[in-house]
Amino acid sequence: MTLIDRLFEVIDAKSSPILVGLDPLVDRLPPHLSEKTRGLQATTAALLEFNLELIEAIADTCAAVKLQMACYEAYGAEGYRVFEATAKAARDKGLVVIDDSKRGDIGSTAKLYALGHIGRPPLLGAEAPEPVAHFVTVNPYLGDDGLKPFYEIAAKEDRGVFVLVRTSNPSAGQYQAALIEGRPLYERIAQDLQTQAKPLAGQRGYAPLGAVVGATWPEEAARLRALMPNVPFLVPGYGAQGGTGDDVMPSFDAQGYGALVNSSRGIIFAWEKYGLEPKDFAKAARRAALEMRDDLIGALTRAGKRPKGW
Amino acid sequence: MTLIDRLFEVIDAKSSPILVGLDPLVDRLPPHLSEKTRGLQATTAALLEFNLELIEAIADTCAAVKLQMACYEAYGAEGYRVFEATAKAARDKGLVVIDDSKRGDIGSTAKLYALGHIGRPPLLGAEAPEPVAHFVTVNPYLGDDGLKPFYEIAAKEDRGVFVLVRTSNPSAGQYQAALIEGRPLYERIAQDLQTQAKPLAGQRGYAPLGAVVGATWPEEAARLRALMPNVPFLVPGYGAQGGTGDDVMPSFDAQGYGALVNSSRGIIFAWEKYGLEPKDFAKAARRAALEMRDDLIGALTRAGKRPKGW
Repeated sequence: MTLIDRLFEVIDAKSSPILVGLDPLVDRLPPHLSEKTRGLQATTAALLEFNLELIEAIADTCAAVKLQMACYEAYGAEGYRVFEATAKAARDKGLVVIDDSKRGDIGSTAKLYALGHIGRPPLLGAEAPEPVAHFVTVNPYLGDDGLKPFYEIAAKEDRGVFVLVRTSNPSAGQYQAALIEGRPLYERIAQDLQTQAKPLAGQRGYAPLGAVVGATWPEEAARLRALMPNVPFLVPGYGAQGGTGDDVMPSFDAQGYGALVNSSRGIIFAWEKYGLEPKDFAKAARRAALEMRDDLIGALTRAGKRPKGW
Repeated sequence: MTLIDRLFEVIDAKSSPILVGLDPLVDRLPPHLSEKTRGLQATTAALLEFNLELIEAIADTCAAVKLQMACYEAYGAEGYRVFEATAKAARDKGLVVIDDSKRGDIGSTAKLYALGHIGRPPLLGAEAPEPVAHFVTVNPYLGDDGLKPFYEIAAKEDRGVFVLVRTSNPSAGQYQAALIEGRPLYERIAQDLQTQAKPLAGQRGYAPLGAVVGATWPEEAARLRALMPNVPFLVPGYGAQGGTGDDVMPSFDAQGYGALVNSSRGIIFAWEKYGLEPKDFAKAARRAALEMRDDLIGALTRAGKRPKGW
């Protein structure tokens, strides 16, 4: 089964289009993981322990996890090890793994990034193992020279790409809304992406080439959904950034598919908002993920989009 | 002395605005480094050996080195170790180190990237050591939410940032030339960058906030130089990408300052074009760097911009 077909199978099996962001932050770790911890190796070990316990607790509530690379890369080589171990643990639990590193470079360099994240880097005298992550996020500012190498490696390795189209942050429009032939830049990027995705559409009509479309701009999301019928959306901005279940509905198609909704801090640090014991952080994350699923299914029901069998 | 003042001091001391790209590729390593090498650890060790010998040979020919992160990150944690060791060796030789990772994310995530690349990541019970790299390259697609955290960490740590404004690749214009109020997006990004840079100008009028401006677009470079009088340029596209010494002149100011011209493959793999013994790759790199310096000084002289004392 191809990656994109498996993604929709996992979503259906769990009745959940949730994407949990595993974005650990040292200053928000539960005290039992942080208080006796000293130095680089101990800090990164604590981040990994936090992640592994979370993955156990949330695995049956979500379709996928997204690892924000900055949280790992900040710690250099040690952080990269935690990224690799976290991604592997999630994958072993049957979760789809999204490597959120927003890379963007050109030509042979873009290809090297693609090989490193969703392919196999060129090794001397040996073949690299299968890539751990299933999808990687990519920045489109450099144009096709930056995007196509990722599409090529994704096709070769049965992996996928999410292109930043319309991000969820307040200053997203500052440059993304520049005009090309009278229409916003992000719509042109969307159009180019749809052209690439169309011939690759698998189950439910979606290709393994996706778009990042922020939950904080529902009207634009509706327009982008219409412009990109074969492109699955990765939707940030739910929860901590202010988006609600109803806000993300425009990113779903009429059958209730086509979007993975991300929440990171609202789930992994949920013990704070519930006032639970810090030791129960994973239990709290599970509860928050289940509440988010209920919220999304409720919104899908109200929008007349609840998938059959959910 | 601040970073930006030291950068110009190094440029003057060596009469060289050259930036050598340390972008090792396994399939172009000299055979004596590659032929008995097997597997991940041996591959990354060979890349490091290649880099360290290059640094020894070129240190007095160039002001700075640029490490293309993709070449390292493709190998995960092991690659990160090679990046760190290479950057440290270059720094110990008195070279300015540019971490070319083109990161772009928002808010607290952008801050984590900045801390990881030009700052100190938050550690439990310990303080991280001083950052190795002096400058990092950043992608502007996410707007101020993505850029300002880098500017803040740069100011705090006396480090610098180069923002991708107009890249050197063929598809650079595809999205970068979208219009804002009738002018290209990259000019708006330039204008916003100049606003940030102006109050930070040090020696020779330049701030530690720079712009990536490709050598392959000389007319646009002239316009961007005028728009950003306080912004130093990192100029890719010389040599292997087709730009000549004369092509990069518009990026220099009337006094012959304000640009660092990058060459990577044209220098580090120069033994191939000179037909030299593979074992002499570092000697060949030195020769290529000196030829590039002569070419740039010749072009500066023809343009009436040769700095006094060079």
